[in-house]
Amino acid sequence: MEKESSKINQILSMKGGLGEESYAKNSKPQRANLSSSVPVLKQAVLDFCDTELPHCITIADLGCSSGPNTFFAVTQITSLIYERCSQLGLSPPEFSIFLNDLPGNDFNTVFQSFLPAFKEKIGAENGSDFGPCYISGVPGSFYGRLFPSNSLHFVHSGTSLHWLSQVPPELNDKSNPLINKGKIYISKTSPAAAIEAYQIQFQKDFCSFLMARSTEVVPGGRMVFTLKARRFADPTADESCLIWDYLGQALQDLVLKGLIEEEKLDTYNAPYHEPYVEEIKTEIAKEGSFTLNCLEIIALPWDACNGGMKCDRETTAKNLVRVLKAINESMIRSHFGAEVLDPLFQVLTAIIAADTKEVEHVTAVFYVTRKD
Amino acid sequence: MEKESSKINQILSMKGGLGEESYAKNSKPQRANLSSSVPVLKQAVLDFCDTELPHCITIADLGCSSGPNTFFAVTQITSLIYERCSQLGLSPPEFSIFLNDLPGNDFNTVFQSFLPAFKEKIGAENGSDFGPCYISGVPGSFYGRLFPSNSLHFVHSGTSLHWLSQVPPELNDKSNPLINKGKIYISKTSPAAAIEAYQIQFQKDFCSFLMARSTEVVPGGRMVFTLKARRFADPTADESCLIWDYLGQALQDLVLKGLIEEEKLDTYNAPYHEPYVEEIKTEIAKEGSFTLNCLEIIALPWDACNGGMKCDRETTAKNLVRVLKAINESMIRSHFGAEVLDPLFQVLTAIIAADTKEVEHVTAVFYVTRKD
Repeated sequence: MEKESSKINQILSMKGGLGEESYAKNSKPQRANLSSSVPVLKQAVLDFCDTELPHCITIADLGCSSGPNTFFAVTQITSLIYERCSQLGLSPPEFSIFLNDLPGNDFNTVFQSFLPAFKEKIGAENGSDFGPCYISGVPGSFYGRLFPSNSLHFVHSGTSLHWLSQVPPELNDKSNPLINKGKIYISKTSPAAAIEAYQIQFQKDFCSFLMARSTEVVPGGRMVFTLKARRFADPTADESCLIWDYLGQALQDLVLKGLIEEEKLDTYNAPYHEPYVEEIKTEIAKEGSFTLNCLEIIALPWDACNGGMKCDRETTAKNLVRVLKAINESMIRSHFGAEVLDPLFQVLTAIIAADTKEVEHVTAVFYVTRKD
Repeated sequence: MEKESSKINQILSMKGGLGEESYAKNSKPQRANLSSSVPVLKQAVLDFCDTELPHCITIADLGCSSGPNTFFAVTQITSLIYERCSQLGLSPPEFSIFLNDLPGNDFNTVFQSFLPAFKEKIGAENGSDFGPCYISGVPGSFYGRLFPSNSLHFVHSGTSLHWLSQVPPELNDKSNPLINKGKIYISKTSPAAAIEAYQIQFQKDFCSFLMARSTEVVPGGRMVFTLKARRFADPTADESCLIWDYLGQALQDLVLKGLIEEEKLDTYNAPYHEPYVEEIKTEIAKEGSFTLNCLEIIALPWDACNGGMKCDRETTAKNLVRVLKAINESMIRSHFGAEVLDPLFQVLTAIIAADTKEVEHVTAVFYVTRKD
């Protein structure tokens, strides 16, 4: 299992660089999510500023990825703290900022392209008294410890916690390969054992996340995290499954065409889970280190991938597939080989364009405080 | 000047990746230097362990590059501290490790290839009680602030401080392009103004380095740094100039062949300086925040690039040029274009192979303590 988990840590990464197919160029829905979470983030920062602030405030962004979104939350948090300190007549604090993602993340592009842009923007917006900001990149899984004890004041994690530390091991069990046959995530036809495997893996991972942070975050420290989640108890609802069904159908199509072996598809499952929001609340209460201050649901329209534009179904399908490709490419290449990528995403575009179903993309924003 | 300096920060980087021409594969002389500095490093660690140790020890390696040397000093420092704590009956500390280099450094390869190797090695050598080690990458110039005040306990910088923050501005003065005509660093024919420009730039940069660290390192914190330096007062001694003369000759050869414009060569100078060790001592005393505990001179033989093997002059030339290429390629490509690289390093190999001169490669190791 350790091996499976460390394999995922190497494979799971958004597409790096700045090219047309990069995550940097195809992460509009994630940006929309982040923007929608700003009111909760703002509330958390203002509450935090009501406490006694240290001279150097340590902020971590967990699952920062590589793109224009990498510095989004950090820009908001630092600017809000700076503004609040000015209002309160406090001298401006220093910021120590840790950007975390798995080791396969494209940190080079973060440091070479997005860090200069962040420094320029934040300096221009806040003036010369702002900062300094000391920036670090932290490679590693947030399901384990990443920072020394009692070292973080404010933690953010945006649209990352739905990625599991590994595919639930029951689904990779070679003696039982049919448990989620032809599917790559929970689907209406998935057996109860597959659904349960996903739920158990999420609970285990999310509890590990909370336990690691409970040691790293100072008492009174704040944490805001957003993740894809379900508003409904039903784990097979379209809200969380439709897109994975589409991708599973596209893979099945390639099996029929002889481009993918059936067994390859049967052993491919996404290291991903969209939990029911009530489950998340239960886990926070059970782990016990954090008080839940606020929970908001963000529901974005089906065409969020168009960046606010209204488009026909075909264009929406193309844009959505670019986003899905930037997210899934590294995992699909690793399992099926690079040669399936082009036909797969062509078929996926056609499948999505031909359907008329539209479900909202749902994200939950949690704001918690580390108990004293 | 700010612009020149930030340009260097983008351009100056050792060749990334793991290929045959990478710095990772061509940094044997630097490794030999690091190995030779271990006795001083060990003394500094033992002295440090005689002070009251914090539960989490913060270590920074400045100019870490990307290769097998990246974790060399960190491995030594953490293992020595762990061993000493065991001897003293103290509980093992946690380590927070910051790896710094310019933003152009290949941090992706550090995180994906050398970090797993480090973790495996250090775990195997020290046993299960060792650590944890929290690793961060810090992009930025060590001539400015990189860390919060009073946040570092132990600092190391290996064979990096001879790289300047910029080419001395006098040498880039378009109204006076002849100041170091046909040369790319101090040479026997360099005018006094060029030599002085290099010395002043070094003093300014080194003072900035000390001032930044004086704020970041806790009182009683230790710093060990190695840099190329001269044993003799003469700034044109072969010891520090011969290799740059060879590279300058190779560039001149390409000017004669019409592959490089003369003006291009006249405006190219290395952002590099090998100071006289006495100058460094003077600067440390002048800045005033650090006590000099120890200074050692390391003199490696001309054929250190062969990794301890005895080779003929031609093989040594080839190996030396591979090292020089891994170091200089990014800067030369940026100024002259990629097309000069192959002919240039072929000519350079021939020039070095044809000569019989051999000088030692000299490095100075300084061990200092932050005053209370």
